[in-house]
Amino acid sequence: MKQVLCCALAGLLASGAGAAMADEGMWTLDHLPITQMQQRYGFTPSQQWIDLVQHAALRLAEGCSGSFVSANGLVMTNHHCANSCLSQLSKGHEDFMSNGYSALKQDDEPKCPDVELNQLESITDVTAQVNAATDGKTGADRIKAERAIGSKLEQACVSGDAKMWRCDMVTLYNGGRYAMYKYRRYQDVRLVFAPEQSIAFFGGDPDNFNFPRYDLDVAFFRAYVDNKPANTPQFFKFDPQGPKAGDMTFVIGNPGMTQRGVPWMQLSVMRDSFLIPLDRVASELRGVLWQYSRQGAEQAKEAQEQKFSWENSIKVFNGWLDTLANENFIDHKKQQDDALRQWMAATPERHVKYGDPWTDLQRAQERRKDLQSRYIELEAGFGFGARSAQLFDDARTLVRAAAERIKPDGERLPEFRDANLPAVQQQVESDVPFYPQYEQTVLSWSLEKLRQTLGADDLTVHQILGKQSPEQLAQQLVSASKLSDASLRKQLWEGGEKAIEASNDPMIVLARAIDPESRKIRKAYEDDVKAPTDKADETIAKARFDRDGMSTYPDATFTLRLSYGKVEGWNEKGVAVAPFTHFDGLYKRATGADPFKLPDSWVQAQSKLNMATPMNFVSDNDIIGGNSGSAVIDRQGHAVGLIFDGNIHSIGGDFVFDDSSNRAVAVDTAALIEAVRKVYNQPRLADELTQGHF
Amino acid sequence: MKQVLCCALAGLLASGAGAAMADEGMWTLDHLPITQMQQRYGFTPSQQWIDLVQHAALRLAEGCSGSFVSANGLVMTNHHCANSCLSQLSKGHEDFMSNGYSALKQDDEPKCPDVELNQLESITDVTAQVNAATDGKTGADRIKAERAIGSKLEQACVSGDAKMWRCDMVTLYNGGRYAMYKYRRYQDVRLVFAPEQSIAFFGGDPDNFNFPRYDLDVAFFRAYVDNKPANTPQFFKFDPQGPKAGDMTFVIGNPGMTQRGVPWMQLSVMRDSFLIPLDRVASELRGVLWQYSRQGAEQAKEAQEQKFSWENSIKVFNGWLDTLANENFIDHKKQQDDALRQWMAATPERHVKYGDPWTDLQRAQERRKDLQSRYIELEAGFGFGARSAQLFDDARTLVRAAAERIKPDGERLPEFRDANLPAVQQQVESDVPFYPQYEQTVLSWSLEKLRQTLGADDLTVHQILGKQSPEQLAQQLVSASKLSDASLRKQLWEGGEKAIEASNDPMIVLARAIDPESRKIRKAYEDDVKAPTDKADETIAKARFDRDGMSTYPDATFTLRLSYGKVEGWNEKGVAVAPFTHFDGLYKRATGADPFKLPDSWVQAQSKLNMATPMNFVSDNDIIGGNSGSAVIDRQGHAVGLIFDGNIHSIGGDFVFDDSSNRAVAVDTAALIEAVRKVYNQPRLADELTQGHF
Repeated sequence: MKQVLCCALAGLLASGAGAAMADEGMWTLDHLPITQMQQRYGFTPSQQWIDLVQHAALRLAEGCSGSFVSANGLVMTNHHCANSCLSQLSKGHEDFMSNGYSALKQDDEPKCPDVELNQLESITDVTAQVNAATDGKTGADRIKAERAIGSKLEQACVSGDAKMWRCDMVTLYNGGRYAMYKYRRYQDVRLVFAPEQSIAFFGGDPDNFNFPRYDLDVAFFRAYVDNKPANTPQFFKFDPQGPKAGDMTFVIGNPGMTQRGVPWMQLSVMRDSFLIPLDRVASELRGVLWQYSRQGAEQAKEAQEQKFSWENSIKVFNGWLDTLANENFIDHKKQQDDALRQWMAATPERHVKYGDPWTDLQRAQERRKDLQSRYIELEAGFGFGARSAQLFDDARTLVRAAAERIKPDGERLPEFRDANLPAVQQQVESDVPFYPQYEQTVLSWSLEKLRQTLGADDLTVHQILGKQSPEQLAQQLVSASKLSDASLRKQLWEGGEKAIEASNDPMIVLARAIDPESRKIRKAYEDDVKAPTDKADETIAKARFDRDGMSTYPDATFTLRLSYGKVEGWNEKGVAVAPFTHFDGLYKRATGADPFKLPDSWVQAQSKLNMATPMNFVSDNDIIGGNSGSAVIDRQGHAVGLIFDGNIHSIGGDFVFDDSSNRAVAVDTAALIEAVRKVYNQPRLADELTQGHF
Repeated sequence: MKQVLCCALAGLLASGAGAAMADEGMWTLDHLPITQMQQRYGFTPSQQWIDLVQHAALRLAEGCSGSFVSANGLVMTNHHCANSCLSQLSKGHEDFMSNGYSALKQDDEPKCPDVELNQLESITDVTAQVNAATDGKTGADRIKAERAIGSKLEQACVSGDAKMWRCDMVTLYNGGRYAMYKYRRYQDVRLVFAPEQSIAFFGGDPDNFNFPRYDLDVAFFRAYVDNKPANTPQFFKFDPQGPKAGDMTFVIGNPGMTQRGVPWMQLSVMRDSFLIPLDRVASELRGVLWQYSRQGAEQAKEAQEQKFSWENSIKVFNGWLDTLANENFIDHKKQQDDALRQWMAATPERHVKYGDPWTDLQRAQERRKDLQSRYIELEAGFGFGARSAQLFDDARTLVRAAAERIKPDGERLPEFRDANLPAVQQQVESDVPFYPQYEQTVLSWSLEKLRQTLGADDLTVHQILGKQSPEQLAQQLVSASKLSDASLRKQLWEGGEKAIEASNDPMIVLARAIDPESRKIRKAYEDDVKAPTDKADETIAKARFDRDGMSTYPDATFTLRLSYGKVEGWNEKGVAVAPFTHFDGLYKRATGADPFKLPDSWVQAQSKLNMATPMNFVSDNDIIGGNSGSAVIDRQGHAVGLIFDGNIHSIGGDFVFDDSSNRAVAVDTAALIEAVRKVYNQPRLADELTQGHF
């Protein structure tokens, strides 16, 4: 399952890419591999085709992809990309994530509390402006200059309407290029249809990242503007036949992050100081959530979204470690780095031009080892249940936003700049269910990890816990805080600094108390690690351009990319894996026991279905987490599939693309239309898909 | 906390050592570093001193150390080494692990269900016999020859009385030497005294492997022979003063395993294919047990022993990974290996003598990567809750023992040879509490991991689960199996093959069904990985002897070793850490909240205690897991402390000893005597300790 991994931590990983081979590459729309596509497939996209692709494709701001599939704002994405909306809409005894949801008429389409869609409007190269602002600077000076120029360029880009436009400055080619991505922002997004979790994620964690596969991992949203379905003339027409083996396919979506161009020096520190510890902690949390879920149906519902999310992440960590511990891979990376390093020092001119960024990088990465775990606990907030629980996330956002919003835009922490505030505000004010027992479980566990990581004698730990145990503090915070009330959050947001200072809500008090220490570790990390690393990476990237030209694609950055390829199986340890699965295989695989238990709807519909309908397929498109929900389209720009996963070999694609085994996994549009019509009896939706409008 | 780690898995790790420096070394009693001790400390042990040390020291067969501290069989070890006995004796609402236990008179000393003590009688070098038997053999032939010679030598050693004598063949110096260790076996071991878990493990997991420290991690047993206290004239006289800073100290105990002499090639595969996955899985299980424990006091009691054990292991894994990912360490290991490899190929004679064991080793380790996870799930039994739950362990033992006992001794799996049967039988027949809810939790989780590791499409997984989910199968097994009844187990043991074949107990049925596949993976692992690795290691070890002489100590093998050193603090990032803590520090550190909550006994005794009493101390003795419960003795052979942990730097001691920071952590005998007298009011025990007899 491919969603952007732990967005908040992405900055702690490394980012950058090599020379594209085979069907490799996640290409930006302003730099498509025209020659390769023509040579390999005889295909040259028209400008009209490129325009369609750009405007029909969508980004889900929280970490997925999607696309318009009708002229009336109908959006296709994955069920697992709708998890959060499905959970948040499930009040009382409802459980839309497990049981699915169908809007029989337009009035039944409920608003998702915090889904934001982004439609790419334009890409502007701002490399010259950024370079001019940061030239020669490092440490705190560089961070300050980056923020100032970032703010200035964003303000110009949104031109006073941050509700309508979202502008993100993006670092491409590991610092070789900077671009401003301007998006149309949609915040009124409503739920149209989702199937049951048991068919969306049939096979569960055991089958995740595996193939053959039988999942209907789909959800449909609708974008609204002014309370009416959005008018979206650029959309992918739905092909109810799906593709054939060997057909050329394109995936258009937002791959989250790859690290193919990152020097080994950086990757090795990432592996040892970040990935291995995070893998350990994530696995432990998975165990907590597993047992919590066994305590009853209510508990299972409360924990299901996070349990799913962490299980997915653990599989990714697992796959990453396989690659990052592979001696052949390591040797190859070291050779690449050594060759570039030697090239950079080979002439006196180059020596003067580039200096020695490698030594700077090494020093910054050594420093990273000291700061990493404290940063994760305090600033990323893992020690307080960040991202797995709710109260601290909201408290931190409210406390920070109040302090930042009164500063000039260019001096704020970037996530609180005017251009970003609408998304932040939407999230903090969204009215979502709150589960005290679940919250206390995650918070208690997180506080225990905080103490373990920083040590029982750490002064900040003493400040937080006092004489209490993590369990006692968690119990007290969860029972006394009123932050689960959306109207209180709205009030605190609107009240700004005064309201925050006056609040005696214990979670606000904690977030306030911890803020100076938390900002301190962030500043140390940014000044001592991020700035010198960025500077060194930028110099290395420039040297690579000088040597190789801009012949390749940049590492993924959760921005719109096109990947080309074909429907094709692969060879798994001597056994050919066919590219398609079909409905008959689904029924054969079903055992009646979770996670191989079919929902009643599918059991009852069996006799009505054409068993030869293709269900899932694989292609050699180059994708990665964040591509979840991406449309698979054909040469005509028609939707023929819906990406929802990669095979197990795709995980290593974070670091290197291997065309012989790396496969993208998609739901066939033929399965989608058959299921919507015959399993779920939704003619309204099926007709809109086949007609391309209501 | 230092207990032998996952004994069942020790064979999957690597074993062997370099040249001893500073106070480094875990020395065998037949090869003591006389010169170094004399040079550094002016101490030369007499033969009488060595005899005392050998006979007063004990091994707890399940993975700890201990020693006789009176002439009447009184045994001192750690509370955490008595966990299993304390849990097993706690019937109904009793909870001796949490609440402690005091036998006011001899009649109150209950028998521990499955504690076995081993007192070293003799060490016999059998290198020539083993070499003659295995010379030139590898693969299945080598395994067969090893078993035959092992059986023959053991049979001769126990001379028909395996109840009295235990004989273990031990591989030393990574195959450079083989020795037969003959032990006096004590199986009637009774509980005399244990304090509360909250003082034995004050500071809990946060303080584990840390210092300053305040733990009374002690338990006293008594060895019985013919229902009477054993007569043990060789014991460590208890020094109620404890040691002073700078005093020379010896630790005598059974360090479980170090891997200082293991080539990097082997360590790297161990890290990537064993340690990282095991760390992940152990962390997840810790999460499960953590949440299980939160469900109520009964659940907390049920899970406490395993939760403690896995938390301890995870800290060890953590420390190992720190060392095994350290670039300096890796470079150093590679250089050492390269130097030896070059030396071995430097002359034609050497080339002929040694061949190329390095290439053989590489091939065997590559094969290991393929087999490792399947071995762990099926043969080590982790997929069925082995070592964390009970039913499968017992079923596997009964099924295997029945099949093995009818074979000639030399053809059996080594653990079922006559010389080992008394320990196996004691364990399988011991009457211990059974917790169905706990059992089902661990079994369900383990079966899920089994499916995840082998894959949902694996034929063996299909054979085990059929159409059931792990939860369903676990529920069925736990509710229907009667194996928790010790009398049934005794009956099945005595009934042998016929009884096993006739049994329809579902856990016996499962163990029987899985046995062929499980033996198959064991055989593949032994033939393709273990045998060629052992052979290559042996050749490399011989070359090292040829080059360096036998100047050093062998890697730890859970056999008796002496380590010398002194009471000394260390410098932690520029801050001096004093070698002693005292009672006053304990009371200052107490918060009232677990795990920093003092038991009532200590709260009430506060005014009676001398606050200047030293509680714990550190020394630079070279120890490792398995040394838990070892006596710290002085030049006179008097007990001055009780090892219970190492500091955080000691964990890397598995791979390399760093005298500047690696410290052993012990309870001071002064604290022990003060607590026994004044906190627990046990004059009987206190007098026996100070007098050396009843």
